Amino acid sequence: MKYDVIDTQISPEGRLDVLSKAEVNKLLDTSQGGLYSIFRNCSLAALNCGSPIDSGKELLERYQGFDISIIQRERGIKLEVKGAPTDAFVDGKMIKGIQEHLFAVLRDVIFVSDEITDNPKFDAGTSEGITDSVFHILRNANVLRPLSNPHLVVCWGGHSISNAEYNYTKEVGYQLGLRGLDICTGCGPGAMKGPMKGATIGHAKQRITGGRYLGLSEPGIIAAESPNPIVNDLVILPDIEKRLEAFVRTGHGIVVFPGGAGTAEEILYLLGILMHPDNAQLPFPLIFTGPASAADYFNQIDDFVGITLGPEAQRRYKIIIDDPALVSQEMQAGIKEVREYRKSKGDAYYFNWLLRIDHEFQKPFVPTHVNMRNLHLQRDQPPHLLAANLRRAFSGVVAGNVKDQGIRAIEQYGLFEIHGDASIMEPMDALLAAFVAQHRMKLPGTVYKPCYRIVK
Amino acid sequence: MKYDVIDTQISPEGRLDVLSKAEVNKLLDTSQGGLYSIFRNCSLAALNCGSPIDSGKELLERYQGFDISIIQRERGIKLEVKGAPTDAFVDGKMIKGIQEHLFAVLRDVIFVSDEITDNPKFDAGTSEGITDSVFHILRNANVLRPLSNPHLVVCWGGHSISNAEYNYTKEVGYQLGLRGLDICTGCGPGAMKGPMKGATIGHAKQRITGGRYLGLSEPGIIAAESPNPIVNDLVILPDIEKRLEAFVRTGHGIVVFPGGAGTAEEILYLLGILMHPDNAQLPFPLIFTGPASAADYFNQIDDFVGITLGPEAQRRYKIIIDDPALVSQEMQAGIKEVREYRKSKGDAYYFNWLLRIDHEFQKPFVPTHVNMRNLHLQRDQPPHLLAANLRRAFSGVVAGNVKDQGIRAIEQYGLFEIHGDASIMEPMDALLAAFVAQHRMKLPGTVYKPCYRIVK
Amino acid sequence: MKYDVIDTQISPEGRLDVLSKAEVNKLLDTSQGGLYSIFRNCSLAALNCGSPIDSGKELLERYQGFDISIIQRERGIKLEVKGAPTDAFVDGKMIKGIQEHLFAVLRDVIFVSDEITDNPKFDAGTSEGITDSVFHILRNANVLRPLSNPHLVVCWGGHSISNAEYNYTKEVGYQLGLRGLDICTGCGPGAMKGPMKGATIGHAKQRITGGRYLGLSEPGIIAAESPNPIVNDLVILPDIEKRLEAFVRTGHGIVVFPGGAGTAEEILYLLGILMHPDNAQLPFPLIFTGPASAADYFNQIDDFVGITLGPEAQRRYKIIIDDPALVSQEMQAGIKEVREYRKSKGDAYYFNWLLRIDHEFQKPFVPTHVNMRNLHLQRDQPPHLLAANLRRAFSGVVAGNVKDQGIRAIEQYGLFEIHGDASIMEPMDALLAAFVAQHRMKLPGTVYKPCYRIVK
Amino acid sequence: MKYDVIDTQISPEGRLDVLSKAEVNKLLDTSQGGLYSIFRNCSLAALNCGSPIDSGKELLERYQGFDISIIQRERGIKLEVKGAPTDAFVDGKMIKGIQEHLFAVLRDVIFVSDEITDNPKFDAGTSEGITDSVFHILRNANVLRPLSNPHLVVCWGGHSISNAEYNYTKEVGYQLGLRGLDICTGCGPGAMKGPMKGATIGHAKQRITGGRYLGLSEPGIIAAESPNPIVNDLVILPDIEKRLEAFVRTGHGIVVFPGGAGTAEEILYLLGILMHPDNAQLPFPLIFTGPASAADYFNQIDDFVGITLGPEAQRRYKIIIDDPALVSQEMQAGIKEVREYRKSKGDAYYFNWLLRIDHEFQKPFVPTHVNMRNLHLQRDQPPHLLAANLRRAFSGVVAGNVKDQGIRAIEQYGLFEIHGDASIMEPMDALLAAFVAQHRMKLPGTVYKPCYRIVK
Repeated sequence: MKYDVIDTQISPEGRLDVLSKAEVNKLLDTSQGGLYSIFRNCSLAALNCGSPIDSGKELLERYQGFDISIIQRERGIKLEVKGAPTDAFVDGKMIKGIQEHLFAVLRDVIFVSDEITDNPKFDAGTSEGITDSVFHILRNANVLRPLSNPHLVVCWGGHSISNAEYNYTKEVGYQLGLRGLDICTGCGPGAMKGPMKGATIGHAKQRITGGRYLGLSEPGIIAAESPNPIVNDLVILPDIEKRLEAFVRTGHGIVVFPGGAGTAEEILYLLGILMHPDNAQLPFPLIFTGPASAADYFNQIDDFVGITLGPEAQRRYKIIIDDPALVSQEMQAGIKEVREYRKSKGDAYYFNWLLRIDHEFQKPFVPTHVNMRNLHLQRDQPPHLLAANLRRAFSGVVAGNVKDQGIRAIEQYGLFEIHGDASIMEPMDALLAAFVAQHRMKLPGTVYKPCYRIVK
Repeated sequence: MKYDVIDTQISPEGRLDVLSKAEVNKLLDTSQGGLYSIFRNCSLAALNCGSPIDSGKELLERYQGFDISIIQRERGIKLEVKGAPTDAFVDGKMIKGIQEHLFAVLRDVIFVSDEITDNPKFDAGTSEGITDSVFHILRNANVLRPLSNPHLVVCWGGHSISNAEYNYTKEVGYQLGLRGLDICTGCGPGAMKGPMKGATIGHAKQRITGGRYLGLSEPGIIAAESPNPIVNDLVILPDIEKRLEAFVRTGHGIVVFPGGAGTAEEILYLLGILMHPDNAQLPFPLIFTGPASAADYFNQIDDFVGITLGPEAQRRYKIIIDDPALVSQEMQAGIKEVREYRKSKGDAYYFNWLLRIDHEFQKPFVPTHVNMRNLHLQRDQPPHLLAANLRRAFSGVVAGNVKDQGIRAIEQYGLFEIHGDASIMEPMDALLAAFVAQHRMKLPGTVYKPCYRIVK
Repeated sequence: MKYDVIDTQISPEGRLDVLSKAEVNKLLDTSQGGLYSIFRNCSLAALNCGSPIDSGKELLERYQGFDISIIQRERGIKLEVKGAPTDAFVDGKMIKGIQEHLFAVLRDVIFVSDEITDNPKFDAGTSEGITDSVFHILRNANVLRPLSNPHLVVCWGGHSISNAEYNYTKEVGYQLGLRGLDICTGCGPGAMKGPMKGATIGHAKQRITGGRYLGLSEPGIIAAESPNPIVNDLVILPDIEKRLEAFVRTGHGIVVFPGGAGTAEEILYLLGILMHPDNAQLPFPLIFTGPASAADYFNQIDDFVGITLGPEAQRRYKIIIDDPALVSQEMQAGIKEVREYRKSKGDAYYFNWLLRIDHEFQKPFVPTHVNMRNLHLQRDQPPHLLAANLRRAFSGVVAGNVKDQGIRAIEQYGLFEIHGDASIMEPMDALLAAFVAQHRMKLPGTVYKPCYRIVK
Repeated sequence: MKYDVIDTQISPEGRLDVLSKAEVNKLLDTSQGGLYSIFRNCSLAALNCGSPIDSGKELLERYQGFDISIIQRERGIKLEVKGAPTDAFVDGKMIKGIQEHLFAVLRDVIFVSDEITDNPKFDAGTSEGITDSVFHILRNANVLRPLSNPHLVVCWGGHSISNAEYNYTKEVGYQLGLRGLDICTGCGPGAMKGPMKGATIGHAKQRITGGRYLGLSEPGIIAAESPNPIVNDLVILPDIEKRLEAFVRTGHGIVVFPGGAGTAEEILYLLGILMHPDNAQLPFPLIFTGPASAADYFNQIDDFVGITLGPEAQRRYKIIIDDPALVSQEMQAGIKEVREYRKSKGDAYYFNWLLRIDHEFQKPFVPTHVNMRNLHLQRDQPPHLLAANLRRAFSGVVAGNVKDQGIRAIEQYGLFEIHGDASIMEPMDALLAAFVAQHRMKLPGTVYKPCYRIVK
């Protein structure tokens, strides 16, 4: 099958519109060097927003002729785009929101690499160093805004959800928007798009202009979960762990909708952090919610958390079924506590400095077959470290399901093997099996072939 | 059944926030006098936006305890609201958009009555006088904006449409919004809400702030078609004819979606005007459109127009089936012509002064049983006058279907009788029968009982 | 001598940019009818801002070829200007501020005449009717702004003042501006320009954008005191009395600098009103101030008030010599009281409804020779009525000094004769003589020839 | 004598309001380390805007108790200020403009030192490296604005000028402002304040909001020429040479008013650069102007340029006497050429990348007694290098006149000795003598004691 494409040139606005000669040269070099392929693939993902594919590999194969490059001008730069999906254009002109996303990609993949990732002053070997680089990436993207009260709600959940669940996420977004709250998600379809659409309507009814729809992505996932142009602040963090840290440091509360392995990964990440003794007093509103049809789903999750991490972990969230207004009211009340707490501690509203994130949760985990096999999933460790390892296990499953690199690895070397304590492996197996049965692993219409094997 | 209600007080913003003492006294008098009931009922309609009822009578009976009154303050006024539907509130606070609508009701029902309707300088006996009062009502509502290029698209269509049709109206609105066009409708659900929702998303993706969603209503219809709070400019014209004139003088082009008797009324009104010899050269983009399932519907309409008004009338519109992008492109091209024409003639962009509207189309028609029976529906008249009378016939059917007064009249005196030339009555009968068969007369779930009888 | 002139056409912005056909026709009629000469002369004054003349007669004679007319367009109007002073232009293009003033003239002289002055609903025979028309003129000029705290300081004082006094008015304006206060004056040079210039710099230093410099004028005085283009809200009231009422109803406090007969008129007007028993409790900050050199001047004024109106009148003002910061602090404190008072009474912040103005102070006084001779300046009346008559006496002197009509009347019929009680006439004579000696009657460089004779 | 002082704390807005923990720590370290004294002295200068002193030494001695320090908060920083001059406050609250200046000092002295000056990626050993650091300092201060047409006029001239000359600079600024041009100066009184005040009024009359008043200073001069709070963008470059480069790379044209040694330095710097063969085709509007009384002054300058640098140098400027409107028109025309040239070359409007500045003009020159004595002021070099050395000679005289360090050096070691070719030394001597005779070296009221000796 052949897909229609368009060639064009676009000019930057904002962060990259005033560059020095040296910076332009460096961008040119970097974009043509080792980062070219990441830069190209993320750009393609940003351009592909209209089309429902969740396979990074499929996307890349569909638009093999796609190319993006920087053109140098005395006064700055332009982006030259070749073979771009037509969905990104209206009558031959690129949609403004997508144009902004392309420059966000350039900024976060190339510029950030020059200024932050490759900058020795950010020490990736320490927890502080990693947090510092997350801070700089977010500030560089202009998403840290002082002078406003906390009102950013992170919404997590699956990209492949039922119609009823999708409509429910819209309704929750709408109720949050009616209450003046902004939305942050991981980009992509499903539970990541619904709340933004709903909030847009809620904001419109309350005459709120300047509502924010913040999308946080990372190079590995963006192809599978391309940013909807409603996202009016897009940031691409260098890896999954920095993306997760960005969620919990910028968001003031988190709503979790039904989802698959990725959502489980996010839940375990957050619970692991919140169970760190240093965070015991820290208020952090966390609500699991879905329509009536999702009640069982959350029971399974709740059971799994109870069995593996214990009641202390269960204490950190509320489960609310089929009541968008209540979700929104509880979130608003929770965020009020966050505000009071930060005020009393002198912490910033725009970045949660006080949250302690153990280095274990920050170190990038690469889901190779060896790393997956070696995961330590035994009970002989404190719950928050067990959470860290469980998080990695689910992260590997996500990679094998939807990420270009993961899919190729499975094709080449066979299924991931996950070992561990039977009392952990069994509920994990059950949970994953339920995800499969409920079609939460992949978009409907595609048959799910598992990428892992639980070795009990 | 009992409905939850709320009491509150709200303060004005905008047009009514700086009033003289004399004006406050007059508002108080007028609002408590003969106009009280219209004022109350329109206010209730504005508050009832969330709930799907299309019977004015039912709405009024449901909230019998509802009351609204003006409170006088030295520094201005407040509105006191009692027994208001809870849907208009979020956690006890009225939604901002609805609050604006309530003051639009006050402005258009009470203030306009003081300043315009009862002002002898507007001579309702002449075409110029009526046009002048329409102009003043619109300017008073601050919807006439100079200095911007034409970009307001009127969307007409039914309040009771299928899901497929509703989604199609959203998609068309989205495509219009992507092209920077604003939306004007008659308020209410269905084809009047879809395009605004779609355009809101289209505007968001193109980073257009300040998109306009203009709703034009009138006291008789507002209860059945209450304004969605997305409407960010609401104007209530005193009668159907002024509302129709407002549509064609402020809009730069019109899209017609499938609908029932009301939509037929609008089509006949516009075609009747455009067929006036003085308007022969005037560009006025007019597109009938719907999803594939609506193709037959528009064929019926097209046939009816062809048989009754002739090919000259058919020349004024295009029918586009199942192609939202094309609708939007054609509309954009048509509006470009409008701009050039007005520029060449020195006409305003914000008000179509050059359009000639015969006095016959401006005179209010009250659909009593006598007036309905006496309609002149014969071929012995020029097509544009036949169009005027057909328009009235459909107008009467709308009243009998959904307006409080009309419903009560039918309950009391039986069906309207419509006489006329068999070569007109037969296709009309067929068309109305088709509307009934397609459930276009009333919202789904209610059984339609015809309010008229064709006497051939 | 020949003066350079320019011809041009300009388009309106704001209030007059959306007019109905009927309104355009009416403007055209009115502007060519009996009001033409007022319209033309006020327009010429607005254009003459750069040049230091204070004789209305001289200005009119200098630009005899000046003409202004409305051009009708389908979409609205333009102004055609012929023979305009070149000072109003930069490289052939009219200064934006002056362009706004010309449309303010059109609005206030022509449009207001159509809509307010000739409108029977404003009854000039009652105090309420006059206040109502002042309110409508101000609202129509968009100078009544809700939602902001009181912060408008009226500055009164002479157009012909010494350099030291002028610099002092700038310094006071600067100190007011530093404290976020806005300025309202009567337009023209001297004490009416200085405070605005000073406040502009003060606002700039405090990064206050949107500072207001409100100028209130009237057709008789505008030629002698043309509005500086810094004035960013210009309103031309129909007569002196409405202009004075506009000052006291919109201003939140008043600073009086040294001046001549006009300033004395303003002081007597205000004291007369404040002495009305109904206003006894009303806070109204009033400060007389000037540089050290003006100390004697204010002693004379204070004595005159003491002798004629008594200590009760003296209680209503403070005299502060040579301390701009203190003036500004006292004014700020006084305005705070005004705010609290209005809040407690529910009065508007933008219009002082609670101030009682006796009809005697509102009725236009035409200073003919007969009217001047018949002024009742005896002690057999309550002080506030004596103040009203003294006000009229000074008003006549102003007319004879600088107004076109007054100058011509004196040329034709000789000096005004002013009769009255010796115990009033003597101090009045002394005060006027002092004004002459101090060159406060006319701009320096011109010899003052008295226009009146005190008949004791 | 004792001067009144105030203690306070202020919070940042803008560039420094979102800092990482690491940055706050670094700021704290740097501000308490070797840069403390520069930081303190520049801050004091910013606070001292109201007072007319032009001796850095005198200022520092007057406020010996002054101290400024950074307070660390979890959420960012505050500045703690002790013993600040009361002129910077209104009723105990710091003037907003001055508050901004204090944070500009922090940003440019401390933050820039951390991020740019001490950053090895900016190679001060090359011309490109220095230009790059100037670019980064300016961008970091947010003064490089894309998307607007060239309209920034640099005004140079003396801080100690006559009243007639000062009023003339105001008038030129007013005429520039009327034409929509913005102003950049070196901060300080006299010819550096007048044009900004004038432009403020010009902008107000043309209803231009957002006019820019850019001040460029450096640590050595800021105490003597403290920034007026009208300056709404203040940048402190690290040394004279970078400050001069900032002027010529951001300004689109330059107006030179009468001045002393500093002005001569600026003229020689610019002519030296423009005479570089690479800049031969580059348009750069340069106008010398003053009131009639300044005609002789510019003749002297013109003669000096003619004798030392030749007619090629004289070709690069126009001298216009006593005609502010003409100055403004010529500047506007010149800037139009600049725009066309940059457009044709693809150069940025906000930074003159194409201007070639020889490394000789960029290397910091420290005017020690040895360096002054060793200046190469002979004719055996190309004119643009002779210009560079003459520039240094005048730079030394400025230091000896008004800079703290220079004054102390002269006190300690006696006068600077300047050697050179007689045909250069004689006109130079004459020029300096004329400056002294015309009181251009120091503010009036102080007796000028020369700091140099021409050794012929």
